[in-house]
Amino acid sequence: MPHDFCEREDEVLDKEFKVLDKGFVRLVDYMGTDSRVVQSARVSYADGTKTIREDAGLIDYLLRMGHSSPFEQVVFTFHMKLPLFASRQMIRHRTGRLNEISGRYSVMKNEAYVPSRDRVCKQYTDNKQGSGDKFDDITSMLAVKDFKEESEAAFCCYQEYIDSGMARELARINLPLSTYTEWYWQFDLNNLMKFLYLRLDSHAQWEIRQYAEAMYNIVKVICPLTMKSFENHMLNGVRLSGKEKEAIFEALSDRQGWSSEALNLTDKERINLLSKFTQE
Amino acid sequence: MPHDFCEREDEVLDKEFKVLDKGFVRLVDYMGTDSRVVQSARVSYADGTKTIREDAGLIDYLLRMGHSSPFEQVVFTFHMKLPLFASRQMIRHRTGRLNEISGRYSVMKNEAYVPSRDRVCKQYTDNKQGSGDKFDDITSMLAVKDFKEESEAAFCCYQEYIDSGMARELARINLPLSTYTEWYWQFDLNNLMKFLYLRLDSHAQWEIRQYAEAMYNIVKVICPLTMKSFENHMLNGVRLSGKEKEAIFEALSDRQGWSSEALNLTDKERINLLSKFTQE
Amino acid sequence: MPHDFCEREDEVLDKEFKVLDKGFVRLVDYMGTDSRVVQSARVSYADGTKTIREDAGLIDYLLRMGHSSPFEQVVFTFHMKLPLFASRQMIRHRTGRLNEISGRYSVMKNEAYVPSRDRVCKQYTDNKQGSGDKFDDITSMLAVKDFKEESEAAFCCYQEYIDSGMARELARINLPLSTYTEWYWQFDLNNLMKFLYLRLDSHAQWEIRQYAEAMYNIVKVICPLTMKSFENHMLNGVRLSGKEKEAIFEALSDRQGWSSEALNLTDKERINLLSKFTQE
Amino acid sequence: MPHDFCEREDEVLDKEFKVLDKGFVRLVDYMGTDSRVVQSARVSYADGTKTIREDAGLIDYLLRMGHSSPFEQVVFTFHMKLPLFASRQMIRHRTGRLNEISGRYSVMKNEAYVPSRDRVCKQYTDNKQGSGDKFDDITSMLAVKDFKEESEAAFCCYQEYIDSGMARELARINLPLSTYTEWYWQFDLNNLMKFLYLRLDSHAQWEIRQYAEAMYNIVKVICPLTMKSFENHMLNGVRLSGKEKEAIFEALSDRQGWSSEALNLTDKERINLLSKFTQE
Repeated sequence: MPHDFCEREDEVLDKEFKVLDKGFVRLVDYMGTDSRVVQSARVSYADGTKTIREDAGLIDYLLRMGHSSPFEQVVFTFHMKLPLFASRQMIRHRTGRLNEISGRYSVMKNEAYVPSRDRVCKQYTDNKQGSGDKFDDITSMLAVKDFKEESEAAFCCYQEYIDSGMARELARINLPLSTYTEWYWQFDLNNLMKFLYLRLDSHAQWEIRQYAEAMYNIVKVICPLTMKSFENHMLNGVRLSGKEKEAIFEALSDRQGWSSEALNLTDKERINLLSKFTQE
Repeated sequence: MPHDFCEREDEVLDKEFKVLDKGFVRLVDYMGTDSRVVQSARVSYADGTKTIREDAGLIDYLLRMGHSSPFEQVVFTFHMKLPLFASRQMIRHRTGRLNEISGRYSVMKNEAYVPSRDRVCKQYTDNKQGSGDKFDDITSMLAVKDFKEESEAAFCCYQEYIDSGMARELARINLPLSTYTEWYWQFDLNNLMKFLYLRLDSHAQWEIRQYAEAMYNIVKVICPLTMKSFENHMLNGVRLSGKEKEAIFEALSDRQGWSSEALNLTDKERINLLSKFTQE
Repeated sequence: MPHDFCEREDEVLDKEFKVLDKGFVRLVDYMGTDSRVVQSARVSYADGTKTIREDAGLIDYLLRMGHSSPFEQVVFTFHMKLPLFASRQMIRHRTGRLNEISGRYSVMKNEAYVPSRDRVCKQYTDNKQGSGDKFDDITSMLAVKDFKEESEAAFCCYQEYIDSGMARELARINLPLSTYTEWYWQFDLNNLMKFLYLRLDSHAQWEIRQYAEAMYNIVKVICPLTMKSFENHMLNGVRLSGKEKEAIFEALSDRQGWSSEALNLTDKERINLLSKFTQE
Repeated sequence: MPHDFCEREDEVLDKEFKVLDKGFVRLVDYMGTDSRVVQSARVSYADGTKTIREDAGLIDYLLRMGHSSPFEQVVFTFHMKLPLFASRQMIRHRTGRLNEISGRYSVMKNEAYVPSRDRVCKQYTDNKQGSGDKFDDITSMLAVKDFKEESEAAFCCYQEYIDSGMARELARINLPLSTYTEWYWQFDLNNLMKFLYLRLDSHAQWEIRQYAEAMYNIVKVICPLTMKSFENHMLNGVRLSGKEKEAIFEALSDRQGWSSEALNLTDKERINLLSKFTQE
């Protein structure tokens, strides 16, 4: 490893990055960096690729063309502390390998997520799943107080059950979805990008977005080239349907929009773009 | 399909089998039966198998020898209603394909699991995860009452949040783990057997065992031969370590235990068994 | 099932669709159609969706927004006969569940793929992996003859080894990659679309494209709505990078390209498209 | 890492271990060791486990009880060179993440597996898939010569096609299954144990067993405790059916076989074993 990479690695390895009121993300370990992506891709090409592409160029090409397997060779293990409702969303990304605290074996700690006042939002009406406008100050203060008291009451009952000798697996059934859990979560870079693409999106629940952002910031340190291409092609990119593609192609063609004056791109970029619109 | 199979199928397809106080398992659809297992296995053997084994014998052989891929060709889609804490255990079986009610889109129904009195057990002490002895009548009656009141209180708060226009994704964070969810859960027969093996076990939580049993009863109707072999080899079988194997082999050998008088098995079964103990 | 669906189903179920010189694709069974996609999605929304979207609209929405799980609920089992080199590409799509002829158990049949004359192409030079221009008639005729004789010679040696009593697993090691294999291949609709997207592409090897097309034609009969959306959004669509998106947005804006006169789209489509370019 | 571990690690990391005539296995990288297994398991137990088990004891317990997820947290990346027919068996273990040389991009090297004389065996007759007795010296010498000449002839044709400018993807279709390929193959320890269990078995093809053994020897250095338990419970262990279990239980009971004199086990081991035979 080059010296400056080790320094940067030190910034993120084994550090607890605080998320929400009591949660965190910690990078326990990882295997491979940008250079593993390159190295794995070159296994496929062997002597087929004589020209030496720059690493950044090759990574960008792989990502742009949807070649996913070289990115699978990079793996991250995160230690996370997160509310149960967030864990239930994350676990839908099924390729993650995880070990989670078991409420059957362990007495759960009295820790629940309490949203801050500015997170108490109205149901978004256009879109069925999102959060919209804020409530007035009084309403949101009261809501926060209610959330806190409710989860405390639930933990209080739980503790009584435990103290009475009740089986843990039963005592926990009324714990709230705001209860914090902990897990080790191992993910490969290819699937991590799919996760980040969905969960950094403004339609994702705000709380899970905080975890996605913490992970994104960590991975940017370990795999800066891949993350830069990911940002350009996936996060900032867009997919057009066939119909939309045609409409734009026509509109630009009719207006000399493909010329170098119209499009703020290098000639090579312009040709690349045009080929996306014209290839069969 | 033979006529009697259709009749038996009718007993389980699209029927709601009640589980716990408010849950159910319903077989929405399935693809393949025992004969698909046989058919798939025969693709592998092609002309390699000239002798015509009976279907039951072939299925038993495949299961005994750990040939998992023919069982993957049979697939079930279940519609289930189950408490969140049970769903959290099931989802760890990652090969399941599922669609679950989303608490971000939908207003959750006011339905929570309330254990019956005879399920209110003490923590098992030898084993960290299980449930042990029952409490006295008074204690368990009171516990049931508490469970019920707690979840009702949580739903009451939830309803107030919803009525106030709060975002659903936030309003639900203090719902209890006893809340019922619903999902479509698609599973292949190979992975279903792994699930059943773990979740029909006496160490599994009683509540999830009820779901495993309901599914087991359904699958027994659709794939009777496979389930019979599964029962013999997996459910009723046992794995011995190398050390245990040797000790038993010696003890039986020293005591003429391998003779046909000592072992209540057919000659063929006895030879099969002996080969397990003597093969390198 | 409606009557006309059953008629259409009859056209594809259990029919051998010829592919290449000796191969085929046959739909053995399937579970679910477009309506299963809709039904599964509605499980997630429960009461969250009051407005009744048309099925086609919901499917299009799910596909456009990357909601993959409802498509996983539809499953296909194909029986395929294909050359080994094609099977090696297909198996990289790891979610397929398969049972393949084993060259260890079975004596392989003397059947190898021989390309037709118009498939004998030059190496494409711009692109490392593709096939380019054709050879002249004489050259391609001779090449076809060579291909045929080579594989026949290999099978001839194989048959001698087998006749001499050599172990099958060893006798087969010099069989050519053009040898035909057979398998059962089970795939869900979500992963099938990923497969089709990659393997219907003009960069895919021509031989595997023939299999992809045969499967596509079958699936279009079973799931016409999903396949129509897939065609528009995936096959005919295009992904733009962030940089390309900005350049096009500017070029169109500078030239009144977003007006209804410029873009050949309905107002609703135009607003949808604009939102893709302007959302954060 | 303790000093002696680093020394041992040095023995296996980034070393090419020769397999067959031209192949190898090289450990490119790994993430985690025995202690990661322990650490991951302890996440699940949290405060549930007060007694401090020794690491070896905990690992043995996890493996014996089928707790697979802690073993998934350890990951290996191998660089392998192996014949195509062996790669086709390995790829059936679908959880492997791999990057392989592409015969579409690259000109394949003229390297094929030629079995040594003592590997030229007769078809095993009892068992459909194995290799049995050897041929006489003359026959096996001639067979080796034939294998070598055949693959050389195939590569000779291949080279002519390539020299004539034929597309690589087509030129390679008659290359033999004995052709060597190379790949990066990433596997987690849980699935690696399943692979080793099946492929170290005497029924596995001899050639793939050589790869399994090379990997096993590497992993024994990195995870000695896990591999020791794996050897005892999996490699040397045996599974009894319900019927076999009962027969042995009766035979031993009738002959005082469960006594400490009869069974060469410690008291604790004897009780453990008895519980396997008596638990419901």
